[in-house]
Amino acid sequence: MRMLSAALLTAMIAVSPLAAQTTAPAAPASVVEDFKPSTLNQPGQAYPQVNSQGYARFRIVAPDAKAVKVSLGLGGRGGTVLTKAPDGSWMGTSEGPLDEGFHYYHLTVDGGTFNDPGTLNFYGSTRWESGIEIPAHDADFYALKDVPHGRVEQILFASPSTTSQRRAFVYTPPGYDRNARERYPVLYLQHGWGEDETAWANQGHANLIMDNLIAAGKTRPFIIVMTYGMTNDLRPGGPSGLAAFDIRPFQTVLLNELIPYVDGHFRTLSDQRHRAMAGLSMGGFETKLIAPKHLDTFAYIGLLSGGTMSLEDVNAAPGYRDKVKLTFVSFGSRELEGGRTGPPGGPRSDPRANAAALKQAGLNSVFFVSPDTGHEFQTWRRSLHAMAPLLFRD
Amino acid sequence: MRMLSAALLTAMIAVSPLAAQTTAPAAPASVVEDFKPSTLNQPGQAYPQVNSQGYARFRIVAPDAKAVKVSLGLGGRGGTVLTKAPDGSWMGTSEGPLDEGFHYYHLTVDGGTFNDPGTLNFYGSTRWESGIEIPAHDADFYALKDVPHGRVEQILFASPSTTSQRRAFVYTPPGYDRNARERYPVLYLQHGWGEDETAWANQGHANLIMDNLIAAGKTRPFIIVMTYGMTNDLRPGGPSGLAAFDIRPFQTVLLNELIPYVDGHFRTLSDQRHRAMAGLSMGGFETKLIAPKHLDTFAYIGLLSGGTMSLEDVNAAPGYRDKVKLTFVSFGSRELEGGRTGPPGGPRSDPRANAAALKQAGLNSVFFVSPDTGHEFQTWRRSLHAMAPLLFRD
Repeated sequence: MRMLSAALLTAMIAVSPLAAQTTAPAAPASVVEDFKPSTLNQPGQAYPQVNSQGYARFRIVAPDAKAVKVSLGLGGRGGTVLTKAPDGSWMGTSEGPLDEGFHYYHLTVDGGTFNDPGTLNFYGSTRWESGIEIPAHDADFYALKDVPHGRVEQILFASPSTTSQRRAFVYTPPGYDRNARERYPVLYLQHGWGEDETAWANQGHANLIMDNLIAAGKTRPFIIVMTYGMTNDLRPGGPSGLAAFDIRPFQTVLLNELIPYVDGHFRTLSDQRHRAMAGLSMGGFETKLIAPKHLDTFAYIGLLSGGTMSLEDVNAAPGYRDKVKLTFVSFGSRELEGGRTGPPGGPRSDPRANAAALKQAGLNSVFFVSPDTGHEFQTWRRSLHAMAPLLFRD
Repeated sequence: MRMLSAALLTAMIAVSPLAAQTTAPAAPASVVEDFKPSTLNQPGQAYPQVNSQGYARFRIVAPDAKAVKVSLGLGGRGGTVLTKAPDGSWMGTSEGPLDEGFHYYHLTVDGGTFNDPGTLNFYGSTRWESGIEIPAHDADFYALKDVPHGRVEQILFASPSTTSQRRAFVYTPPGYDRNARERYPVLYLQHGWGEDETAWANQGHANLIMDNLIAAGKTRPFIIVMTYGMTNDLRPGGPSGLAAFDIRPFQTVLLNELIPYVDGHFRTLSDQRHRAMAGLSMGGFETKLIAPKHLDTFAYIGLLSGGTMSLEDVNAAPGYRDKVKLTFVSFGSRELEGGRTGPPGGPRSDPRANAAALKQAGLNSVFFVSPDTGHEFQTWRRSLHAMAPLLFRD
């Protein structure tokens, strides 16, 4: 428990927006002036913009402000400092190109934290943050296409253990409404620290990733359930705090309340071999804390930038070798470069070597690395895309 | 068409956040110091707060700012001007109590428009705005309770007419998943100008209103479909603009694309007498432009702060008397006081008298007034709550 808490801390530090920056922002000879509005801008908003090299350009209207900064884009200097443009607005361009994919950010205007009014908001860092999208070379796999679409359904379920009505989102695949007798496997998919149940569908595009995989015949259609995992209230300075990290409140909601609700209200295949659990960052740690101890409930386990599964871990979980059909572990390549995969201070556990050891021991172990991305959603979009086709094949 | 455009303009003016203010903010003797965080605050945020009298108190951290203002709370003066508190934050309390219910607002920080980082955001005025909730005496009817809950399902449907994949939200009532043979009537429910398909479920609580009505046995369970109605791009300064208001793009999406998709993918009762159309403000005008001309499609018509239906209107629509089972018209009482119900400059058409004339002529006409509210969501929550039990009773 102590080690996991430390590793959790690492993940929590790594999830900060600064992880968005390239580790060495080697500026190209010149910035190409082909900037276009980010695809996440609010309707009609021209800024922020991105160019073909991955630079981001910001424009904020605040004529009487003294200083405006963006929490993104400058390695080690805490962000992009905007300067006054001739028209009185504040403008600035990231010093180097940003990694492909989605980045959280916010503004500092005269010492206050605000969102960029040009962009949509996404829940991260325990607040709704601004988001920007750097077009990725592989963006096609999560693009909104003219294919049959599944649904993202908001459900509200009673939670006696927390004396509340709780929310989850449920992805049902295309065809779910038509095939009234068909039953589907279920993946329980968790967000990271500071995020919530909206993350995987909003910034993660989990529904579009599935729609496209299913349309291409690359994955078996299944249901995905996404709920809030910070049940123990892990806010900075909150009542429980990091030291009090306790998996039990969330585990109770998941195992005793949500899973029975989903099996009671959706056409699921409700046996162990048709249920998976995976999560990103803190959601991966939650998966590792819950799933190996409940192997009559889960057959597939996915840790996305959320720790590693060693042979020791496997041997400590009775029945793991027989009951777990897949152990999927993934990271962004920059996380591996940065050495952010083990607990600080302790002996570093190499997740790639751990995955190889599991395979060597005869387990179905898959290790996936997202190229040139860090502890961010492009890594997790790619991880889901890589993992989904491997689920529920037995 | 000219008259409708003018009336639309009236509705658009009235939808501005200033309509939130009491018309005469008669300050009580003293402000009661029982302020609590608004229920719409982001997790862990203490401000904004509201007190038992309906006053709102704001606190913004921006230590180096010169001026911070809130677009809410001061009759005729454009908002609440915040002042520097001893701790360096900016604080202020509305001059008078605000109307019960939901209000949009934003900040002006050193001349720039930003959202209050303390609150959740809601799409209105063609941007994501801050929201605050003044507890209403009748808040129970849209409270989240321990009753069976329906779902709010995001669907994506192909729209050849706009060459896009479009989004809608579909409320399915509790029991929809269990009663695999039951079919349900459908209400197509539109948002107002500057809002989008998220409005009715987010700030409107349409799903909770239905859950509670159904749990109390007060309404027949039915499906609600909510999609984006500003298909002709009515942004201020946008390419088409107000003068170019044209119902056809939206009408095509609704009639030729969305309704067939919903009837094809949900267990609907797809005949005329099981289909309703209603909308708030601009959505009411859209309803009035579309439904009376398509009486083989719709049997129930609802205009919520969105115009009036006169006997002339009825007589101009062949078949109206026979085919329309309910004409529901509602306003907030402050809208009627303000005389905001008719086209400016033209002869004022009294919606109450019009409703009475329809009733006199033998039509099922219901006129509903929300007490002490204006052109805002508390009026529309109450309107939906009053209208739902009257739908699909034939």
